[in-house]
Amino acid sequence: MIRVTVWNEYVHEQEYENIRAVYPEGIHGCIAGFLRKDPELQVRTATFQEPEHGLTEEVLEQTDVLIFWSHARQEEFEDQVAERIQRHVLRGMGLIALHSAHYSKVMKRLMGTGMTLRWRHGDRERLFVTAPGHPIAAGLPAYIEIPREEMYGEYFDIPKPDDVVFTGWFAGGEVFRSGCTFTRGLGRIFYFQPGHEEYPIYYMEPVQQILRNAVKWCMPTLRRSTGPDCTEVTEPLEPIC
Amino acid sequence: MIRVTVWNEYVHEQEYENIRAVYPEGIHGCIAGFLRKDPELQVRTATFQEPEHGLTEEVLEQTDVLIFWSHARQEEFEDQVAERIQRHVLRGMGLIALHSAHYSKVMKRLMGTGMTLRWRHGDRERLFVTAPGHPIAAGLPAYIEIPREEMYGEYFDIPKPDDVVFTGWFAGGEVFRSGCTFTRGLGRIFYFQPGHEEYPIYYMEPVQQILRNAVKWCMPTLRRSTGPDCTEVTEPLEPIC
Amino acid sequence: MIRVTVWNEYVHEQEYENIRAVYPEGIHGCIAGFLRKDPELQVRTATFQEPEHGLTEEVLEQTDVLIFWSHARQEEFEDQVAERIQRHVLRGMGLIALHSAHYSKVMKRLMGTGMTLRWRHGDRERLFVTAPGHPIAAGLPAYIEIPREEMYGEYFDIPKPDDVVFTGWFAGGEVFRSGCTFTRGLGRIFYFQPGHEEYPIYYMEPVQQILRNAVKWCMPTLRRSTGPDCTEVTEPLEPIC
Amino acid sequence: MIRVTVWNEYVHEQEYENIRAVYPEGIHGCIAGFLRKDPELQVRTATFQEPEHGLTEEVLEQTDVLIFWSHARQEEFEDQVAERIQRHVLRGMGLIALHSAHYSKVMKRLMGTGMTLRWRHGDRERLFVTAPGHPIAAGLPAYIEIPREEMYGEYFDIPKPDDVVFTGWFAGGEVFRSGCTFTRGLGRIFYFQPGHEEYPIYYMEPVQQILRNAVKWCMPTLRRSTGPDCTEVTEPLEPIC
Repeated sequence: MIRVTVWNEYVHEQEYENIRAVYPEGIHGCIAGFLRKDPELQVRTATFQEPEHGLTEEVLEQTDVLIFWSHARQEEFEDQVAERIQRHVLRGMGLIALHSAHYSKVMKRLMGTGMTLRWRHGDRERLFVTAPGHPIAAGLPAYIEIPREEMYGEYFDIPKPDDVVFTGWFAGGEVFRSGCTFTRGLGRIFYFQPGHEEYPIYYMEPVQQILRNAVKWCMPTLRRSTGPDCTEVTEPLEPIC
Repeated sequence: MIRVTVWNEYVHEQEYENIRAVYPEGIHGCIAGFLRKDPELQVRTATFQEPEHGLTEEVLEQTDVLIFWSHARQEEFEDQVAERIQRHVLRGMGLIALHSAHYSKVMKRLMGTGMTLRWRHGDRERLFVTAPGHPIAAGLPAYIEIPREEMYGEYFDIPKPDDVVFTGWFAGGEVFRSGCTFTRGLGRIFYFQPGHEEYPIYYMEPVQQILRNAVKWCMPTLRRSTGPDCTEVTEPLEPIC
Repeated sequence: MIRVTVWNEYVHEQEYENIRAVYPEGIHGCIAGFLRKDPELQVRTATFQEPEHGLTEEVLEQTDVLIFWSHARQEEFEDQVAERIQRHVLRGMGLIALHSAHYSKVMKRLMGTGMTLRWRHGDRERLFVTAPGHPIAAGLPAYIEIPREEMYGEYFDIPKPDDVVFTGWFAGGEVFRSGCTFTRGLGRIFYFQPGHEEYPIYYMEPVQQILRNAVKWCMPTLRRSTGPDCTEVTEPLEPIC
Repeated sequence: MIRVTVWNEYVHEQEYENIRAVYPEGIHGCIAGFLRKDPELQVRTATFQEPEHGLTEEVLEQTDVLIFWSHARQEEFEDQVAERIQRHVLRGMGLIALHSAHYSKVMKRLMGTGMTLRWRHGDRERLFVTAPGHPIAAGLPAYIEIPREEMYGEYFDIPKPDDVVFTGWFAGGEVFRSGCTFTRGLGRIFYFQPGHEEYPIYYMEPVQQILRNAVKWCMPTLRRSTGPDCTEVTEPLEPIC
């Protein structure tokens, strides 16, 4: 059993009629909905508006993989909660950061880079599999089409990914490393570009397949309840000569 | 001409007689001293005690490569200056972090991981070249001996390095990725483990050779004065059809 | 069910009494023996002496993960079989290359580098986990001790690994990247240094745990029966304007 | 002074009038021509038709960086010369493989993978800089336009590159890792996709800038005249206890 927490800012859906029409139960409701059909997954949700954004120490301790969508309240996100998420990732919790969450405090803390990119509304994306043997690409064709998507373009200021599982082609003339994996401490991170809030992208079956695959790939092999701290070795392993 | 700023906390040397005996002009004085013999380098120094730790916006703008040694005042280092250094690295400034600076705010911000390791005073290290074609290893033999060094041991909680140029063997029975490169934004980073303050390590010719090589390798190819920020592309590069 | 083929050259065990005493049923017999206790694995063996070294097209088609130990007959190994193994790895078959198999035709073809290293009989190794969240390190302590092992030392002329899961410390003063993963085409490769034929290393429980983990990690996500070939795209995906 | 050998198959230019019209002195003549304007470079050329393809042991010993364009005679290229080039790369010689040379014996030997890709004549490419701090991207804008180019598309079956310096967007709807670096042994390798023989791509100033940058980046730091071979260490560095 993998315990998944789907976190969504849940601001756009309440503020804009057209976005609520796409995601009447919020992006988190849509994602939790299709993940719950998988009997291996135990899914809960949380949003920005809850105390501590719904991501208390207790919730994170009981989370194997955190899915994270954010955009409008990046700066208002509590520093303490961002630090807490980072700490849990380093101790093993998996993290799937979606779309504009590239610019969240959580991702900036974990990546250390500017996380900047080029962007423009109203484009179309073709997502190529560029690591076909990777578990996150399991069951997918050579490429998938996303009929409407916000363009995210290079240069994307991230550290070198472990794997670039998906590379995006945009009709408007740009490219993007749209699906990237990273390891930080014991935790596995998957950044996935698709998912602009105005378009029904998380209803697409291949996108759902990618997220299911990613949840399973992000499941920690090892999880620690304390640390990280430096460790003094009081007695050497060998006599020093 | 490469403009180098050698930053040293300069606390241990003033507090302890035995350390002052090793570095009467401070670790920064020693490092600046041998670097100044290279006519390609223009070297200045700065220390913790100066206003803004001597690392003002102006100083960093005029710095191509920052060498950074810290230990006793990691937590007291001003957040604003740590953020400033990070920003300059992302815009292209090179960074050489020495020894215990692995645990500085600067490195934690840039790496995003716990930066933890195992440690113990009073050991002996053999430093193997594990990337012999790398410019930082130029002119070095297959390994060098460091007669007295603090042990730093694995697991070292860092993101995957671009290259592990040096790997350390310790007489006390441990191993360490003792020389690692990273790219963050436009900046090149070299972390180098040797340099415990009680031992005259920065006087060793091969260590000086490594630092000279590293300064040249860290020299930015491209330096930006602004950014990073996300960029809106108002007109698509191609008509979208 | 994972179909494993354990291939062993099986020369030393037949030639030398002392080695036969360690591995009376051959290294392949020992490894197949402990793997067969895992109900998820279906295990067969093959050796150098069989026609086509026991690695026919049919055997490889029915192999998910190939374990490969070789030393005395590296040069006599048929080129055609080495090419066949390479082709199956690129199409998805997992490969675990053990000890002196670093210098096999198979590994040289897949890696493209010299695969050279330093070596000396009669040493002792401490194997540190340097990627603690990696599935191949699951269930292991921070390090394990191998009381007698042939020393393999750096510089090890390999391409940059995906992950260095284990790093070896040798009592004789050397270090080695003793457990490395690589991806080639659709195939996953794990190179594992321990396993000199004179010492009972494959009887050690932690080593058996590593090999069980590695078999599961090397299981292909995707397997192709043809290719690789370049593909002409006769009709563009988009009208070219 | 960097000693560059520009090798070109030089078959298409002699067989086809339209290609000869683009490159009347061969692709090698064009490339050698603009490189010779750089006073740091000493440039010679060689072609398929010469004995040993003009790449004798002596020529390679005197070559710091080999530029290599091939297509029509990949299979007829002498195995012994391909092996010789590989050996020199592992000992430090730089290699710049252009366009269809991805499928040369030389690149297949060095990479170990299938080197397959998707392709189609008659497209248009926009080349994005995806590693803006890399020396090979020095002096370039965020992207350059190549008005006519053969499409090369993903999945490109290569080992994970050290850096993906350029990523290509194609009007026909595909993406490609168009500029990739690799380290093999002591040698640095740059694969660069642009350069279909029917189009005057190597006359473009930004492409010439990339190749000049690449030559300088590929210049070896260390060059060995022998090896690689495994080395027996007869006396341990430390007493073994």
